Amino acid sequence: MTRDRFAEMHCSIAQTLTVLGEWWTPLILRDVYLGLRRFDELSADLGISRNLLAQRLEHLVEAGVLARVPYQERPPRFEYHLTEAGHDVVPALLTLMAWGDKWKTPPGGPPVRLVHDACGRDFVPQVACPHCGGGIDGHGISVYAGPGAAQGPGTMLLARPQNAPQSEPEGGLDGGREG
Amino acid sequence: MTRDRFAEMHCSIAQTLTVLGEWWTPLILRDVYLGLRRFDELSADLGISRNLLAQRLEHLVEAGVLARVPYQERPPRFEYHLTEAGHDVVPALLTLMAWGDKWKTPPGGPPVRLVHDACGRDFVPQVACPHCGGGIDGHGISVYAGPGAAQGPGTMLLARPQNAPQSEPEGGLDGGREG
Repeated sequence: MTRDRFAEMHCSIAQTLTVLGEWWTPLILRDVYLGLRRFDELSADLGISRNLLAQRLEHLVEAGVLARVPYQERPPRFEYHLTEAGHDVVPALLTLMAWGDKWKTPPGGPPVRLVHDACGRDFVPQVACPHCGGGIDGHGISVYAGPGAAQGPGTMLLARPQNAPQSEPEGGLDGGREG
Repeated sequence: MTRDRFAEMHCSIAQTLTVLGEWWTPLILRDVYLGLRRFDELSADLGISRNLLAQRLEHLVEAGVLARVPYQERPPRFEYHLTEAGHDVVPALLTLMAWGDKWKTPPGGPPVRLVHDACGRDFVPQVACPHCGGGIDGHGISVYAGPGAAQGPGTMLLARPQNAPQSEPEGGLDGGREG
């Protein structure tokens, strides 16, 4: 199964995809974040089979991203709430949204607008460096093997000797820049 | 096909998933970003079937995320380069990585470390508000229907009357906060 293969990789993108990488899962988390917390609400909004939705929710609970919270005792009924790990997924969802807004915009414009409560402004989520505040755009960063780097499938590049943790920083990859 | 259903949704996360939402695709883009640009290199690193890799690459070229660039004429051979839209995917990949580093960290620590060339510091990518620089963490934002909002599958919440574009801001959703 693909998820199992990803789970074996020494790559945090692959690890994240073991939780988020299946069709529907990001939209389920989006809906829970937006306040649709009950099975029937999610089923009605997403229009997926109840069986598939149940599988996805169960996996998200097992992965610690959603928590089942009882809201009724007889018969027992549950809502799904984001855990701390689940709330941490939201910024990733927002960056996926921002990419779609920019590159797959429908004719009418972005379907959603976001307001940052602290400053009251409409905003487009931006990935930034927390030290200098500079925007991160895929150029201008260098990628090195980290302490948990290891050889294995999907990690050939970082396992190259010149990028091992003990090497000098100038041995780093150029972050995909051309030339 | 799931991708077609997502393509019909008025949701930029769903639209993004029509491009990125399949297993392997984020890892293919990661590898191209890190400098593995040739079919055989990608195939060797990822260990997926050549048929599946070819399908994914073709879709990414059609979607405008990768460009095929010839590097040899006889026989014709191509490399895959990120387009501007492809470079724009990188921040989203980094937020997925950051989530995995935090919540699925291997025993040895993060497999990769990132250095922001402009300030020279190791950094953990953070999603921020471009106006005030404040970090976006899933709390403290309000979500409203945007100009392209429309009723349809997967958009029930934003199609609620109180969240229509013409409504007052205080009609907004609470961003998933409890209580």
